[in-house]
Amino acid sequence: MTDTVWPDLKNDKLMYIDQTLLPNEKRVCECCDLRQLYGEIKRLAIRGAPAIGVGAAIGFYAYETRGTETDAKRFLRALEEDGEYLVSSRPTAVNLAWAVKRMLKAAKSAENGGVPAMKAALKAEAEAIYNEDIATCRAIGEHGAKLIKPGARLLTHCNAGALAAVRYGTALAPIYLAQEQGKNPRVFADETRPLLQGARLTAWELAENGVDVTLICDNMAASLMAKGEIDAVFVGADRVAANGDAANKIGTLSVAVNANHFGVPFYVCAPFSTIDLECPDGGSIIIEQRAPEEVTTMHYRRMMTHPGAKVYNPAFDVTPAELITGIVTEKGIFKGGELANGK
Amino acid sequence: MTDTVWPDLKNDKLMYIDQTLLPNEKRVCECCDLRQLYGEIKRLAIRGAPAIGVGAAIGFYAYETRGTETDAKRFLRALEEDGEYLVSSRPTAVNLAWAVKRMLKAAKSAENGGVPAMKAALKAEAEAIYNEDIATCRAIGEHGAKLIKPGARLLTHCNAGALAAVRYGTALAPIYLAQEQGKNPRVFADETRPLLQGARLTAWELAENGVDVTLICDNMAASLMAKGEIDAVFVGADRVAANGDAANKIGTLSVAVNANHFGVPFYVCAPFSTIDLECPDGGSIIIEQRAPEEVTTMHYRRMMTHPGAKVYNPAFDVTPAELITGIVTEKGIFKGGELANGK
Repeated sequence: MTDTVWPDLKNDKLMYIDQTLLPNEKRVCECCDLRQLYGEIKRLAIRGAPAIGVGAAIGFYAYETRGTETDAKRFLRALEEDGEYLVSSRPTAVNLAWAVKRMLKAAKSAENGGVPAMKAALKAEAEAIYNEDIATCRAIGEHGAKLIKPGARLLTHCNAGALAAVRYGTALAPIYLAQEQGKNPRVFADETRPLLQGARLTAWELAENGVDVTLICDNMAASLMAKGEIDAVFVGADRVAANGDAANKIGTLSVAVNANHFGVPFYVCAPFSTIDLECPDGGSIIIEQRAPEEVTTMHYRRMMTHPGAKVYNPAFDVTPAELITGIVTEKGIFKGGELANGK
Repeated sequence: MTDTVWPDLKNDKLMYIDQTLLPNEKRVCECCDLRQLYGEIKRLAIRGAPAIGVGAAIGFYAYETRGTETDAKRFLRALEEDGEYLVSSRPTAVNLAWAVKRMLKAAKSAENGGVPAMKAALKAEAEAIYNEDIATCRAIGEHGAKLIKPGARLLTHCNAGALAAVRYGTALAPIYLAQEQGKNPRVFADETRPLLQGARLTAWELAENGVDVTLICDNMAASLMAKGEIDAVFVGADRVAANGDAANKIGTLSVAVNANHFGVPFYVCAPFSTIDLECPDGGSIIIEQRAPEEVTTMHYRRMMTHPGAKVYNPAFDVTPAELITGIVTEKGIFKGGELANGK
């Protein structure tokens, strides 16, 4: 399968799929310029928490390795300035700041070897960040694939797939691994209103990778479960609390309640970096309210409703641990109360 | 509040709101021509099962009363031919055929009085059909409003409001009555994918009539219920089986399961004409599958997903009686098992 972001190590370039053109066009782009990288992250051409971190690391190395500075101290100072600039492209993206910090630390630790050693360290660190993301997602996939029987009919919500990461994704990793293992899973993808990540991204990447995928409106999942046509649910998570409560894209809670009612196992797939043991439970997670226009317009055309109607548009909801059958991580499958043992 | 269809008895005309222009424009139109009436029903300018029946009856009288035929027999034959033509505008609309049949029967019963008596009978019957619909909806509203406390926060799905009937509607009737009684209910309207009847119609008519309404995506209802922000759910029904299982717009089942999980009362509002005692339970109700394009496109623009993704697009789902707190009818509020006593 194609990665979402990846390094061209021979030519020192960042390669990526421009996600703003999906699902209409799959365009592979390249980047070795800092301003371009800043712009591509800002306009969401590179998006998804892990993909942003990996893309930033590779793009940062691709740009800095072309620098003409020969003094190690001055090179390091320029790296710091450039890193700060890059982080400002999406200030709330935790993975972006985290990746830049790792890159700076790697360069600094090679300072004694001079600029050539620092450039080599940047390249090695970018490659490591890239490979680690793939390994983590693949491990989630291997653990999760054990839960999938041949021909299983699976439901997912939003996009926690390859397009949000580098390869495999989180919620889609078990599905891709099951596909590799010849189990031919069938996937139902919630379209995921209001921004339609399920229709635009999940259905696109599964179809692109040859997985049997059927698109449904979010409100149709219950009717499939009632007919016994869903064997398991796999979703991602933006944040998992210590007790196992999971915040994820709005609509996840409704899927979990329905899965619980109809006896369908409900799995949350997330790397341990998403598990926040400082956060005791879902009640402590603050839910962002987003712009009403996401609901009242479709691709910037107001046409949905009366101007007097108000809009409620939370970005996420919290699924309580008791509705979650298991949390699939790179270290195995956990129950809510067991998370502290794994970290 | 404004009716959706109504008679101008002084000028013998059908008046109606062109629903194809909503929510962008509220245009009141008039009609006294049979071909125009046929076209307006066919292109959904007049839509909603009860509204089609009432609109057809009024429009039929408005056209026929202008006829120059003086022979009762020939007049009756023309009525029959015109009625057959009108019914063919939407052959599956039960209320349309029912209304035309009532009109023909009324004319026939006045045949001995000649054409003027037959025209008077048509006018009286159209007026009766119109008034009966309003009375039935108002009775549902009066029973249902007893379930609504001052300031109650209510959720509805799809459009079972005035726009689907003549005035009040079914699911929205208790809300309009509560509003009349000064209870100031607050309504959350599911947008109702794929065709967005909640956004385009329900939010529009509630806002237009001064009811506090907030539009949500279908997948957001669970998060409101989880926070204790919904006091009751009111939905309509396309068909209620003898045991109380209710078929309604796709997505209703998911709302019912969530309401049940979070302890929120869930009411189905329907006139007794919707209750089918011949149908033992929901398993006997055949669910229509609709065109994939409703999901993959938004107002005829393909943009949602990968061309390789399949689509599952059922029009309705069935909510089992055990998830329904009560069925609100014009004769009072019933439990599933009690329906046969009311009919």
